[in-house]
Amino acid sequence: MHSDKDITKEMDEGGKGSIAHELAKKQQEISITEFFEKNKHILGFDSRIKSLMMGVKEAVDNSLDACEEADIRPEIYVKVEKVERISDSEDIYSISIEDNGPGIVHKMMANVFGRLLFGARFHALRQSRGQQGIGISATVMFGYITTGKPAHIRSKIEGADAVAWKMDIIIDTKINRPVVMNDEPFTWEGKDHGTRIDYFMKGKYVGGKQSIYEYLKNTAIVNPHAKIMFDDPEGKRHVFERATETMPVKSKEIKPHPQGLEVGDLQKMAQNTQHKTLKAFMKNDFSRITDRIAEEILQVSGVQDKKVTAVTREDCVALLKAIDVVKIMAPQTDCLSPIGDTLIKKGLMHVLEGLRPDYYAQPVTRAPKAINGNPFIVEAGIVYGGEIPADGEVSILRIANRVPLLYQPGACVITKAVEAMDWRRYGLEQRGGKGKPYGPAIILVHVASTKVPFTSEGKEAIANIGEIQNEINLALRLCARNLKSHLNKKDRKVKTHAKFEIVQQILPELAKKSADMLKRPVPDLSRTISKIMNVVWVEPKSSYDSKKKIKNITYNVYNYTKAERSFRLHAALPKEAVNETLLSDHFLDMNDEGKANWEVLNLPPFTSVKISFDLVGDMADVFSESDIYLSGVNSAFVMGADALPGDWGIKGMEITESDIDVADEEEEEEEEEDEEEEDEEKKGGKEDDE
Amino acid sequence: MHSDKDITKEMDEGGKGSIAHELAKKQQEISITEFFEKNKHILGFDSRIKSLMMGVKEAVDNSLDACEEADIRPEIYVKVEKVERISDSEDIYSISIEDNGPGIVHKMMANVFGRLLFGARFHALRQSRGQQGIGISATVMFGYITTGKPAHIRSKIEGADAVAWKMDIIIDTKINRPVVMNDEPFTWEGKDHGTRIDYFMKGKYVGGKQSIYEYLKNTAIVNPHAKIMFDDPEGKRHVFERATETMPVKSKEIKPHPQGLEVGDLQKMAQNTQHKTLKAFMKNDFSRITDRIAEEILQVSGVQDKKVTAVTREDCVALLKAIDVVKIMAPQTDCLSPIGDTLIKKGLMHVLEGLRPDYYAQPVTRAPKAINGNPFIVEAGIVYGGEIPADGEVSILRIANRVPLLYQPGACVITKAVEAMDWRRYGLEQRGGKGKPYGPAIILVHVASTKVPFTSEGKEAIANIGEIQNEINLALRLCARNLKSHLNKKDRKVKTHAKFEIVQQILPELAKKSADMLKRPVPDLSRTISKIMNVVWVEPKSSYDSKKKIKNITYNVYNYTKAERSFRLHAALPKEAVNETLLSDHFLDMNDEGKANWEVLNLPPFTSVKISFDLVGDMADVFSESDIYLSGVNSAFVMGADALPGDWGIKGMEITESDIDVADEEEEEEEEEDEEEEDEEKKGGKEDDE
Repeated sequence: MHSDKDITKEMDEGGKGSIAHELAKKQQEISITEFFEKNKHILGFDSRIKSLMMGVKEAVDNSLDACEEADIRPEIYVKVEKVERISDSEDIYSISIEDNGPGIVHKMMANVFGRLLFGARFHALRQSRGQQGIGISATVMFGYITTGKPAHIRSKIEGADAVAWKMDIIIDTKINRPVVMNDEPFTWEGKDHGTRIDYFMKGKYVGGKQSIYEYLKNTAIVNPHAKIMFDDPEGKRHVFERATETMPVKSKEIKPHPQGLEVGDLQKMAQNTQHKTLKAFMKNDFSRITDRIAEEILQVSGVQDKKVTAVTREDCVALLKAIDVVKIMAPQTDCLSPIGDTLIKKGLMHVLEGLRPDYYAQPVTRAPKAINGNPFIVEAGIVYGGEIPADGEVSILRIANRVPLLYQPGACVITKAVEAMDWRRYGLEQRGGKGKPYGPAIILVHVASTKVPFTSEGKEAIANIGEIQNEINLALRLCARNLKSHLNKKDRKVKTHAKFEIVQQILPELAKKSADMLKRPVPDLSRTISKIMNVVWVEPKSSYDSKKKIKNITYNVYNYTKAERSFRLHAALPKEAVNETLLSDHFLDMNDEGKANWEVLNLPPFTSVKISFDLVGDMADVFSESDIYLSGVNSAFVMGADALPGDWGIKGMEITESDIDVADEEEEEEEEEDEEEEDEEKKGGKEDDE
Repeated sequence: MHSDKDITKEMDEGGKGSIAHELAKKQQEISITEFFEKNKHILGFDSRIKSLMMGVKEAVDNSLDACEEADIRPEIYVKVEKVERISDSEDIYSISIEDNGPGIVHKMMANVFGRLLFGARFHALRQSRGQQGIGISATVMFGYITTGKPAHIRSKIEGADAVAWKMDIIIDTKINRPVVMNDEPFTWEGKDHGTRIDYFMKGKYVGGKQSIYEYLKNTAIVNPHAKIMFDDPEGKRHVFERATETMPVKSKEIKPHPQGLEVGDLQKMAQNTQHKTLKAFMKNDFSRITDRIAEEILQVSGVQDKKVTAVTREDCVALLKAIDVVKIMAPQTDCLSPIGDTLIKKGLMHVLEGLRPDYYAQPVTRAPKAINGNPFIVEAGIVYGGEIPADGEVSILRIANRVPLLYQPGACVITKAVEAMDWRRYGLEQRGGKGKPYGPAIILVHVASTKVPFTSEGKEAIANIGEIQNEINLALRLCARNLKSHLNKKDRKVKTHAKFEIVQQILPELAKKSADMLKRPVPDLSRTISKIMNVVWVEPKSSYDSKKKIKNITYNVYNYTKAERSFRLHAALPKEAVNETLLSDHFLDMNDEGKANWEVLNLPPFTSVKISFDLVGDMADVFSESDIYLSGVNSAFVMGADALPGDWGIKGMEITESDIDVADEEEEEEEEEDEEEEDEEKKGGKEDDE
């Protein structure tokens, strides 16, 4: 075995004048900086518009990551200012991004901002925005290339005795190392801790869907714990206030899961382990391998426990085969930090307030899945109506690890999943049941993973992987069903409005007037009305005090049928917003997710019952009172509440035998279609990426 | 100024226990190998099917590059063999690629195959397949990761005294360096020079559009000078014989062109130049800067000639502004090696023979253009009819620097350009005049450049750049017009067949019979026939002797009009195939591109003239006799030949005043539409990539 030495050393073989020798003279090492300098499109710095965007994105992503790591509620300030006009298609901008993060240790500042492939998160198996240690250094590099000016960095770490440091940085691309100028301590007035970068970049500022404003707006939606301020080049200030004080659950670093490992990976890990024996290595360097499982793997593989240095390729092959057979728990998922249904809704409501949407469909957070040992979670939300333009394509907010994706929508699995669904059955227009849906809606999809499979280093689109598309489909389907049931309810309400007016108001008045005229007692109309109506009617009402952040919710449930009715009501409440007012007479229980149940027993015909409670705090307004479910009565005869979904997770009340016996066939048919679709999409999802 | 030193050195600042210090401990360098190991999708090694493909592609690309460099006609042998079944979706394959290239110097072998970002072509401004020095080393790396087995390399360089060397290589991914085992000289029986790699890879072999077979077939089409043999996993041998002995024109390395440079690039070049003064630096380190132009740049910029070490950022800014103003020649294009229209057709004919296509539209090689100083050329060809399936989507062969692209068609500018054209006007079906065209056609597009802007390092798709899309559109349009005129001719031939039968055969026979019966002399029908026909009729005929490689071409031109006719015939001949038989009576001249002209003066009515010549050699069969143009007569009254296109580059004969005076309005209308379309597409091309 030998390693290569000096490559320009004298050649010791024949054919000196040959082509091979000519070629050999030219062969040389290329630095990673030179590589990315030449292939700037891989990082997204290939267009003037994009490069302006990319720099801001990289800096903001880093700030958010650092704040989360340090449990600091992020406050981020972004400023983009035009400083020199070059031509119609390019200008020079000065760009600043400042955060209140933990700051960067002085010795590290130069490497963090001036060296590609240098970072803290590359080897960590956990969800984070940045990972490779490329983005911000590439920004510094392209800023210098396009303007010839260094980036100016300031940082101050926590602690009373800590001083702030500032310096100018450029990158020596030949060797991928920072060159630092004017490195000195200073007093940062009014700043406890944080980092600021100021740099120049040739670029072109644009508005619209792929603008810095849009990126920051969407960032605010999916990071409701962050406050973001933006001074745009027209001198306008935009402020996205924090929607919640609650920090996201911090993702934890996990060890690699043994499933999906390659032989070479296992060999390398065995070479690099600090443990002495094979068994100790397996137990300590992987997640989900206990003593018992390690022994089982050894037994099944036929490999003896031995010194790890003695492990051969054949041992590794046998071990991997055994790992496929032995039952091992799925990877932990606390390495992920999903946004959560409540906060998705809150984030959307907070930032999209101006559009006054009619409805926020209940967001969905799917259970975690894993690809090759990398866990991932899909979340989805839909916003509908109000002032969202009704005549255009539906907007799709694509989010990966809480970072909005703005470019390459066509190459992204999220777009593909949205376009593969037949949205017509959920109330949106769509030509031929495929492709982009149309209508007043915004669809949000978040993919969170320890390793989001982006199509390129520019992190613009998520690769087309069947398992991910499948999860997105399932999440969207659930969300869309909720939207559909809202639209249905709206529809039915209009239709039954006339009938109800007669029953509730006109009939009794008629009866009263007739009785008055005839000087007879007012007749009891209960039976008549019940005969006409033949429904259990749930009437939700709410009022919201935005100052005190108190939302009162009241359900009046009328039994307009001929018999006594027993039923349960079910609602998924934002559990942070629940208080003791929930404990009314009919309240049954609430689980950890905030799913609450009420029970009403033997409600006589033509009587009603009232259930009322308050929600308080930041999340109070997230609950939509129309998202109420009723079990115990055939859903065809319930008005104003949905049947409890099968996947709701808690058991409703059994439907009792009743005088209601006409089934709503249409409804059932729809369900069936849905299931068929599901099967189809599962098949579709497994096709290979082309 | 200071550079970073040891990053783990003791910290000299406050706040020791802070989060910032915690983070700092984790910060570390990542090697480029680790980076690509983790981001394998960037290199195309993310799926089992693709990784099998990628390795073969990287090795074959390298072989072709090396052979061209050394002026060797490539002979490449590829073998893919299944050696172990793992599961339904993966097996282990043994893969071998052997070439007859110049070989690799022993000292370089380890680095070429065992170190990423190591290569000879990175800094060279010229067209080549490989560039970054990543592909083949990545193949060695992923082969080892997935199977735990090293790659085995053999190489022998030219020269009687040279020995062959063989060795096993794996890569130490932590430091991106080769680890070499069993390095020893050996006698390579029957091999003068060449290189062979044998490696193992976990993968999945598939047939179809994205198969190794398809890749090799398409490689043979666009590299007609190469012979490629392939033993597939089913044990079947496929041989793509060489279609021509002519090597492609070797691309030359050029210096960077000053236009489109960034300030930072100029500063860096100035720092690294070996020249002392600013003027000498500009003159010697750039292409197209002469003494005079260097002086003009200095004058316009207001920068004095000075020591290059004294050049400031402000000087660079001023120089670049001056470079934008001073007239500088466009970059040379001998750094490119387009395939050329003749060889595109030959390559297509050679490999697609089995499909017996009706027609190979005249391929188009556009004039070079440049983006940011990087020249590029677009070429296109269309094959139509025969046994190409008529009911499916048109196949698109996407080629970049003579390498077929198989994946990510949806992300590629070539697909986008094809889909943006309205193919209905060129005789193909297309829903709504947009999207994929349908019909029995294969469309080939080749983009050659010193720097093809791929969307990712996997080199699967060309980025969506307006200038490139525009050139593709123009090339396709020309090609498609040729196809359309062929289809029109076919159409018109059918329509006029009946008329012609009467005129040429039945009328004379009738006259003869009548005369016989009446015992009178046969009347002269010339005037009558001319009145009925009123056309100049060009009748092409050909015969091909495939053994001797001689194609005889004969045009009979009949003047079926009332007046004498003078006209010229024009044809674009493969000039390699032309011999002295061309020098007939009516031959006028032929230019460097092979565009030949014949002239016929004062052809009396109802007489004909015959022009005949031979084409010989490899390219003889490339010429399609129906691609003949006629000038001097209004095209509405010409049958069997097209009007000389406006962009043909040579002047035809003016149309003389004549008794033919009905204009073909339809034809003119079409032309106008085409121009409109062109304007539209130019606009479209300038939009920014999303």
